[in-house]
Amino acid sequence: MSPTCKLTYFDAMGIGEPIRFLLCYGKIQFEDIRFDFEKWPSMKPSTPYGKVPLLEIDGKKMHQSAAICRYLGKKLGLAGANDWESAQIDMAVDTITDLRLKVTEYYWEPEETTKQKKKETLLNETLPFYMEKLDALVKENGGYLVAGKLSWGDFFFAGVSDYMDCVVQFDITKDHPNLAALKKKIRELPAIKEWISKRPKTTL
Amino acid sequence: MSPTCKLTYFDAMGIGEPIRFLLCYGKIQFEDIRFDFEKWPSMKPSTPYGKVPLLEIDGKKMHQSAAICRYLGKKLGLAGANDWESAQIDMAVDTITDLRLKVTEYYWEPEETTKQKKKETLLNETLPFYMEKLDALVKENGGYLVAGKLSWGDFFFAGVSDYMDCVVQFDITKDHPNLAALKKKIRELPAIKEWISKRPKTTL
Repeated sequence: MSPTCKLTYFDAMGIGEPIRFLLCYGKIQFEDIRFDFEKWPSMKPSTPYGKVPLLEIDGKKMHQSAAICRYLGKKLGLAGANDWESAQIDMAVDTITDLRLKVTEYYWEPEETTKQKKKETLLNETLPFYMEKLDALVKENGGYLVAGKLSWGDFFFAGVSDYMDCVVQFDITKDHPNLAALKKKIRELPAIKEWISKRPKTTL
Repeated sequence: MSPTCKLTYFDAMGIGEPIRFLLCYGKIQFEDIRFDFEKWPSMKPSTPYGKVPLLEIDGKKMHQSAAICRYLGKKLGLAGANDWESAQIDMAVDTITDLRLKVTEYYWEPEETTKQKKKETLLNETLPFYMEKLDALVKENGGYLVAGKLSWGDFFFAGVSDYMDCVVQFDITKDHPNLAALKKKIRELPAIKEWISKRPKTTL
């Protein structure tokens, strides 16, 4: 059977990896279409808003990583038991995105002096600030981001932290035991463990 | 009766205004707590993640504007009739946020030469690119962002475009008739019209 689900993204983990994690966890067979960063300028005009990831699923074309993950989260029963739980997942995910945008802003800064300054702020202020707060959140929520149980937010965190680790070149959870344990828990889910063992090795 | 709902934000429209629009539309009485930008450094440490807006509602403390708007959208029956409609709202809102972040990045750029460069890119490339695409989306969707009917995404667009207008100093919908009509439609809803007539006049 040919897969009816297609993910299009860079040959990278980035903000594609949380989608891949959720698809694997949900045993949704997908075509993992990857392209090199050099190919991006020629690909960009064919995308809905000049961005990836893109997901084709159930005959629908989706864009925006968080929106895609939330949609998959609902399909997989990982989107909270009520509006308040769902909102807590959304708040955590958008907070992780705030951090991720700072990581990305540093990574792609073309001007070397500015990049060094951004690196210092990121490593000494932004990253510790967010990681401490998120670690406390996971502690309060019994080892998960929300309501003491697995949600698509946890997959979002684990997927995006792989990318952030690549950028800063260390495990961002290393001084944050609750986040480290959460990441480990996601990575040890059989479907995710299998995916990680076979996924293409990339630098981002 | 004293309001049990409190919004805390800058004395600005910014990303607080879509929340104010939704609260007004839903006839949810709220305390509109505003502070000057100069007060922000002393306020920041008391916020959950160093960010505003914050909403207290139903005894719950919320942060992250899109998450708050989505939560209110669900309460008000403005969050789509099914998962696919909800996802389309999410995709549109996150796309508007991508644009808004570019507007904000230009606005707060401290270095004058870089700011001029960002302004050119914003006005000649980014803004027309997004506005054309979003205008086409609204055209396809019968005058709304999604599914030919009012959703929280439409309030999000109208609220945030007030802020973007302030930054670029013109009506960003002026060459985009479908978006202009959508914005007008939102602003002419009786509750929003009343709010706009009485809201504090701000520069952002």
